[in-house]
Amino acid sequence: MNRFERRLQQFREQMDAKGWAATFLAPSGDMEYLIGVRRQRPNATKSHMHGDWLYGAILTPTECVFVAPYLAHHFIVDQTKDKPWITEVIKVDDGEDVPALARQLIAKYNLAGQIIGIPREALASTIYEIQKVAPGTTFESTGDIVAPMRAIKDAEEIELMRKAALVTDAIFADVFKALKYGMTETDVMMEVEHQMLKHGTEGSSFVTGIMIKGPGANGALEGVARAGQTEMQPGRVVAFDFGVVLDGYVNDFGRTVHCGEPDAELRRIHDLVMAAQANGMAAMKAGQITAEGANATARQVIEEAGYGPNFFHRLGHGIGIDVHEPPFLSKGDTTVLQANMCFTVEPSIWVPERCFTRVEDVVVVGPNGATSLNQTTREILVI
Amino acid sequence: MNRFERRLQQFREQMDAKGWAATFLAPSGDMEYLIGVRRQRPNATKSHMHGDWLYGAILTPTECVFVAPYLAHHFIVDQTKDKPWITEVIKVDDGEDVPALARQLIAKYNLAGQIIGIPREALASTIYEIQKVAPGTTFESTGDIVAPMRAIKDAEEIELMRKAALVTDAIFADVFKALKYGMTETDVMMEVEHQMLKHGTEGSSFVTGIMIKGPGANGALEGVARAGQTEMQPGRVVAFDFGVVLDGYVNDFGRTVHCGEPDAELRRIHDLVMAAQANGMAAMKAGQITAEGANATARQVIEEAGYGPNFFHRLGHGIGIDVHEPPFLSKGDTTVLQANMCFTVEPSIWVPERCFTRVEDVVVVGPNGATSLNQTTREILVI
Repeated sequence: MNRFERRLQQFREQMDAKGWAATFLAPSGDMEYLIGVRRQRPNATKSHMHGDWLYGAILTPTECVFVAPYLAHHFIVDQTKDKPWITEVIKVDDGEDVPALARQLIAKYNLAGQIIGIPREALASTIYEIQKVAPGTTFESTGDIVAPMRAIKDAEEIELMRKAALVTDAIFADVFKALKYGMTETDVMMEVEHQMLKHGTEGSSFVTGIMIKGPGANGALEGVARAGQTEMQPGRVVAFDFGVVLDGYVNDFGRTVHCGEPDAELRRIHDLVMAAQANGMAAMKAGQITAEGANATARQVIEEAGYGPNFFHRLGHGIGIDVHEPPFLSKGDTTVLQANMCFTVEPSIWVPERCFTRVEDVVVVGPNGATSLNQTTREILVI
Repeated sequence: MNRFERRLQQFREQMDAKGWAATFLAPSGDMEYLIGVRRQRPNATKSHMHGDWLYGAILTPTECVFVAPYLAHHFIVDQTKDKPWITEVIKVDDGEDVPALARQLIAKYNLAGQIIGIPREALASTIYEIQKVAPGTTFESTGDIVAPMRAIKDAEEIELMRKAALVTDAIFADVFKALKYGMTETDVMMEVEHQMLKHGTEGSSFVTGIMIKGPGANGALEGVARAGQTEMQPGRVVAFDFGVVLDGYVNDFGRTVHCGEPDAELRRIHDLVMAAQANGMAAMKAGQITAEGANATARQVIEEAGYGPNFFHRLGHGIGIDVHEPPFLSKGDTTVLQANMCFTVEPSIWVPERCFTRVEDVVVVGPNGATSLNQTTREILVI
């Protein structure tokens, strides 16, 4: 049994225990994790393939039938050749009666009025179209079963996470060499994206964020894109937030580069951010702390220094096949951390008119705390 | 009344006629069109903000209440300042009880057991979470009302579409100058993305596709990404498929560059593709033809020449705020074309071991046929 067969067996047992008649694996991290079929990268504006609301794998206790719009059919068939757990691939052509196909599959597998699992990020239209042809059918999140499975990485996954981390470090090293005064956030972002592809990765795991902050550069942190026209100038900082996809696993990384020698306050802020990260990681001992407990621990040093309101977001998030996956190092998440969970640990201090100082690494929880997969220095970076 | 107030009035009238109690405008093209609030660019792998299944505007007959997770709150508030039709913005903090907030809003606006409109691309979790707190609530597609409104562009929208087309032409001209033998699909893609940002656009409207085909280069058309490691070499063709977002409107463009002088068959294929596009555009007279009729007309010349199976996809799709929006120039879409509808017209001929020859322009339907907004030459391109 390979890893997908093992995961499917475990998933189907729990599907049975929950009384789900089937699961509709729309393109998602859960699909990649359970059946090993990759998603395509998403478009920035909405695209449409005829029948896309039925695009995905219908997983029953014994079958796994993949429905693919013709524009995606080749992509899916290429991937299913070596996957005997996928029992059939059905192509949907333009003009085809998709509700009729849905009705037929729902009848074949007795799904009407039953509970069906579905990933949270599936299309809303999948649900209302299925409820139209099979009223009374209800949906529950595949995450209820898969999230705890995905949260704990096996040895092979840890190695993939390590590779994604190390290539991200290498990309940052090359970007750092290319930084020059006068570059805009967009210029730096283009250099990051260029290096991601030069280093042979599949590209970004999320929209690359380059935020230049400091004197005269205090706009909102984010817009439609996450890099604008603010320039690198003396006294400002360049805050990096980026990561790659490599062999289906991702990294999410951050550092802050100072334009010119930082003054005492900027050094103090840097030290506080690094101390918060170090304290958080040290506290992340398997079985010894909750996700929200790690968040609270890391915040403490920043709060005691009076910068509490300037660290305005959660400490971090689970990471693996998706850039954000449960658990979350935030208020309200009472999950007890376990060995081989992977998280980002990413405290920051944002002081308008001064700086946005941040650090972010992907770490693995172990018995004595969390260890970082990323290896880039945490010393202050200056150009 | 500005354009958003006019659209909202029309939408609410139809919402009333359909018996919808409200609409949940999750981030989508329909949200941008109706209330003028932009989406952020999507991440390549899934991200998660606490409460994201309630992220969007609840539009009732009289109110428009925007619910924003704290990580998006600043982005939303920045945009709602000058939009009095948005009556309230509610921030969701980490750890907050989101089902309780949903329950409260559902009670306030009497939505339980009612019909609620929702964009097709909203999160599936929005539906099952709302159905959990308000059983019996059903959902219908906002597209039922908005798609016909969006399909016909007003004068201001046509100008925005023209600007997006012309900047895409200019980007292609600069990319063409940079092409060199030995460049890979990924190299060319990086040049395209670089020029998109240099030309001041918001970036790609969809994943840039660079497909190098011909002798020794006959892999699948698409993978996880849409550009690989195949190189520009004599006898091959470089098929471009890309477009930008500019001020919230998009373009979708294609040309084919020949590496070295094309032989007689490649020239014939080029001429057939251009003739198919010209015939399709000439037939696209307002009120005179259906979407599937335009598709059939354009195919005819390619089919008669014996390349029918090599033109394996639909002729085109509506385009505007999203790269694909109804109607679709494909079998099964019986919409009668109307003046000021915008479409791509994109015939292609794929001959394995030989070429993937394509053209694509965004056109506007008029009384005498469609006219192209893109102005790049349709002559054969050779380097």
